[in-house]
Amino acid sequence: MSQSLADRLAALRGFLADQNLDGFVIWRDDMFMGEEVRAKDERLAMISGFTGSAGYAVILKDRAAVFSDGRYHLQLENQLEKPLWQWRDSGPDAMQKWLAEAGEGALCLGYDATTTSVARYQKLPTACENLTLSWQGFERNPLDDIWQDRPAHQRNAAYQLETAITGQSADDKIAALQEELAKHGQDGLIITAPDCVNWLLNIRGDDLANTPFHLAFAFLPQDGAPLLIEGDSPDYASMRWQDFCRTLPAGRYGYDEASLPMALFQALDRPDMNLQAAPCPIYLPKARKNAAELAGFREAHLHDALALCRFWFWLEQCQDITCYQETDLVALLRDERRKNQSYICDSFDTIMGAGPNGAIIHYRALTGQDSAICDDNLLLIDSGAHYQTGTTDITRTFKIGTPDDEMISAYSAVLSAHIALAKAHFPKGVNGVALDAICRAPLWATGRDYAHGTGHGVGHILSVHEGPAHIAKKSGPALDDGMVLSNEPGFYEAGKWGIRLENLVAVSQSEQFSDSFCFETLTLVPFEQDLIDKQMLDLASIHWLDQYHARVFEALAPHLDTDVMRHWLSQKCAPLL
Amino acid sequence: MSQSLADRLAALRGFLADQNLDGFVIWRDDMFMGEEVRAKDERLAMISGFTGSAGYAVILKDRAAVFSDGRYHLQLENQLEKPLWQWRDSGPDAMQKWLAEAGEGALCLGYDATTTSVARYQKLPTACENLTLSWQGFERNPLDDIWQDRPAHQRNAAYQLETAITGQSADDKIAALQEELAKHGQDGLIITAPDCVNWLLNIRGDDLANTPFHLAFAFLPQDGAPLLIEGDSPDYASMRWQDFCRTLPAGRYGYDEASLPMALFQALDRPDMNLQAAPCPIYLPKARKNAAELAGFREAHLHDALALCRFWFWLEQCQDITCYQETDLVALLRDERRKNQSYICDSFDTIMGAGPNGAIIHYRALTGQDSAICDDNLLLIDSGAHYQTGTTDITRTFKIGTPDDEMISAYSAVLSAHIALAKAHFPKGVNGVALDAICRAPLWATGRDYAHGTGHGVGHILSVHEGPAHIAKKSGPALDDGMVLSNEPGFYEAGKWGIRLENLVAVSQSEQFSDSFCFETLTLVPFEQDLIDKQMLDLASIHWLDQYHARVFEALAPHLDTDVMRHWLSQKCAPLL
Repeated sequence: MSQSLADRLAALRGFLADQNLDGFVIWRDDMFMGEEVRAKDERLAMISGFTGSAGYAVILKDRAAVFSDGRYHLQLENQLEKPLWQWRDSGPDAMQKWLAEAGEGALCLGYDATTTSVARYQKLPTACENLTLSWQGFERNPLDDIWQDRPAHQRNAAYQLETAITGQSADDKIAALQEELAKHGQDGLIITAPDCVNWLLNIRGDDLANTPFHLAFAFLPQDGAPLLIEGDSPDYASMRWQDFCRTLPAGRYGYDEASLPMALFQALDRPDMNLQAAPCPIYLPKARKNAAELAGFREAHLHDALALCRFWFWLEQCQDITCYQETDLVALLRDERRKNQSYICDSFDTIMGAGPNGAIIHYRALTGQDSAICDDNLLLIDSGAHYQTGTTDITRTFKIGTPDDEMISAYSAVLSAHIALAKAHFPKGVNGVALDAICRAPLWATGRDYAHGTGHGVGHILSVHEGPAHIAKKSGPALDDGMVLSNEPGFYEAGKWGIRLENLVAVSQSEQFSDSFCFETLTLVPFEQDLIDKQMLDLASIHWLDQYHARVFEALAPHLDTDVMRHWLSQKCAPLL
Repeated sequence: MSQSLADRLAALRGFLADQNLDGFVIWRDDMFMGEEVRAKDERLAMISGFTGSAGYAVILKDRAAVFSDGRYHLQLENQLEKPLWQWRDSGPDAMQKWLAEAGEGALCLGYDATTTSVARYQKLPTACENLTLSWQGFERNPLDDIWQDRPAHQRNAAYQLETAITGQSADDKIAALQEELAKHGQDGLIITAPDCVNWLLNIRGDDLANTPFHLAFAFLPQDGAPLLIEGDSPDYASMRWQDFCRTLPAGRYGYDEASLPMALFQALDRPDMNLQAAPCPIYLPKARKNAAELAGFREAHLHDALALCRFWFWLEQCQDITCYQETDLVALLRDERRKNQSYICDSFDTIMGAGPNGAIIHYRALTGQDSAICDDNLLLIDSGAHYQTGTTDITRTFKIGTPDDEMISAYSAVLSAHIALAKAHFPKGVNGVALDAICRAPLWATGRDYAHGTGHGVGHILSVHEGPAHIAKKSGPALDDGMVLSNEPGFYEAGKWGIRLENLVAVSQSEQFSDSFCFETLTLVPFEQDLIDKQMLDLASIHWLDQYHARVFEALAPHLDTDVMRHWLSQKCAPLL
């Protein structure tokens, strides 16, 4: 008989009693602080039943709660077992407010120091209204000793990407970084963000379902060979983090507060150590893709567009589309992508939103709980994949049956926003805040807006959401040559349908103006002409769209299997003018 | 014989010796921390000869320097007498860097506590490389005892504006503010920004040349009548600041760090006092103009447009325009405005930039040092006035002779930027950063940009530059109903000409979309059709322009003196479509 949630909670409370603790926090993070974790590290789901991708649980002796953001309120309500669990929005001071309900006095709370970053630790509250809080770190998560039937994880060694794909050898990247370290007088760099480790050493792996990471930390001495920590690679020496911390000689070392676990920090923070916190110096060079990486992105987008178009063609030919469930289409789309030999994995769980589900921005169709495809409505599909040369992320909104005027008007407005950004030129030094407004302006002109950012960075066969640059209301670093970002305005009519139109774009030197950048659109999939009201696009936008469609046809046509499909695509790409 | 700059410097150094000081700083500010000061308070010019509107001087025993920003570098070079004076850019740490050149050790510097705000005092440096700095405040500026032939200032009493003009009686404003004070548990508010004093009490005055302020502080008790400090009004009791500080009973009082002089702060900062710093609560309600104020703005803009058009008509008829100097045209334009009985004064010194001078963003033509009007070139005029019902600020760029293609292309690009902002709709809550990008985008699309903000707030018969909202790269408060701002994109070709197109706009509820704002353009002067390349404007922009010109003609035509002028205006306002 499998372990119940009540059993697990009782077992953890036993641990609290043994340790003289008043409570314990469980983050959704694992040791690597990324968006995705292995099944064996799904500790938040293990203890609470909540499977969302963000949040944390606080377990006291007599009560327990999960905290997550607005995307997950409905899911919290459905997944949490009452009265074992409560839930709260994870807004500012949420934990304090909930703890304050527990009464007055002092609480001593435990946390897992291997899954708590230095930055997160520094923000742990030490007091709330009537309470003082103290925190006790553990180097082993108590859940790991409670967890029966814990999923196993088959660890495979990292593999090496060829320089033809990465555009720069690991040796060259290492040499450049070591020069930086020398300049800053540092004896070495502790690299804890796995995408930085994978990028620097040109390694990848299969530890995660949707992100081709080999999960590991690394240490790069100012002079000498890099060392993998908690990793496994035929090309690099590796050790456990405890051994690394014990054997690291005294010196000046840089580290990244956002991703260094407290357990490592505490083990390293000896009197003879000089630890210097700064954002990992790999973030920016990794974000600026080189020519080979951009060429790989282009190739990946060609593969992806062919898969998308085959899927779209099938969707339009299908006589009985309303007999399909959303999850059926997720599988069919994945099958189309898998046909390409270069396909590695989907880059995130596909969002397949039929009709009203399209208006739920972070909707995920779950088998058995999903909807059938709605007729005379819209279908929003946000999906992507990692290929051996690059990563994709695309959203298209398709018509099912006959669209009404409001759908056409909204689609055209979102498309005009998409194009406003796609065709923008902007001076070097401009950051994503200005570009966010340029994208939103045409939607604002119709009284519409969307409650999410306009663009996120995209890693090269790494995380599909990559910092540090973004296009959003919140300020970020200046956009720079080679950065790959999404361009994804939307509009959502709650209870009816959602529209989002997303291409990936690369920041490029403008050919016309020496001090300006512009965007190269990487994605190669047509927009739906039956949803476009030409009157709502200005002439320059129609020109952009016609040129884009001509480019799409030219790129895809030679690779299509049949004349029927080529004819179909030529109609999708027909000029509006 | 008049006092030389060398005499003045020597006298100040005598004061340093008497007081055992190593140096003294002289700001450009007077006690009221505004943009404009009375001749009797032009202490920076008195000691250094530099007449710019921003900057400060530091005088040591053996050297002296003036610090100001890039607008004034040329003027500093021209106006400062060498070797008495050096000059430096007023960038970050400028004072420290210059002081560090003086050597090692410790310096004790004096400052005038009546012209140093609390905010400025808090930022005074206390150390630089090899030096420690200490500061000694004085309640009387030593220059005032040195200054021979100091200009006298004829102080007139404040006058009262009618409620028909202000839209709200002083009693109502006072009652609303007192309610706020009660809510915050404050016993009173010390109001030191003169525009806040003038707005709250509905008074104005003639203390300054271009701003109809009655210079004064005020004190508003939570319960009771307001008191004028350092002011003179038939309607309010007044006292000297020293007497106010001495007689204010113990209590909780709000004050504004940016405008409260240190002298007052120190006199008030007694052990029994509870002084609470916060931006003056009057700033926001003052920025949101009410219906009467907006009606007054509209009336003022009608007066102003008629003056501008008469001037423009004359400019075009003039056979020998190149015989005129820039300052001649400044006077002629002022004469046109003066013809209106409602005219009070210009709202700032007119910028009249012929040809290359138009490219100097803050150019001021000085009699004897100005240029003749250039033929086959552009003329940039940035001017405005206070009328009895409102304030104007307008920039137009005129053609003199025959414009070339580059001028036409640049004018059209600037106009497309102007219109992009003028016709924007945007959700409530959006601040000026997004609107700045919406304005710049069409210019960026042509590889052009401008090195100044897009829009500043405008006071109602108060300061022509008014906070707290603005349209610029720097973040500010959300735009709100009734705020009046400028819309003034530009493009400047150094050494050749400058283009700026400025209208004032009021933030208004969108008639189409309930949660959106849009702009009502207040200014009523046509743009120059001979400088517009229609191909560079999109259709929506041409529609906006044609509607604007139709509105301008309809508003102005009934008030023109002759049929010739009416015909002239109809041509200026002819539709492009």
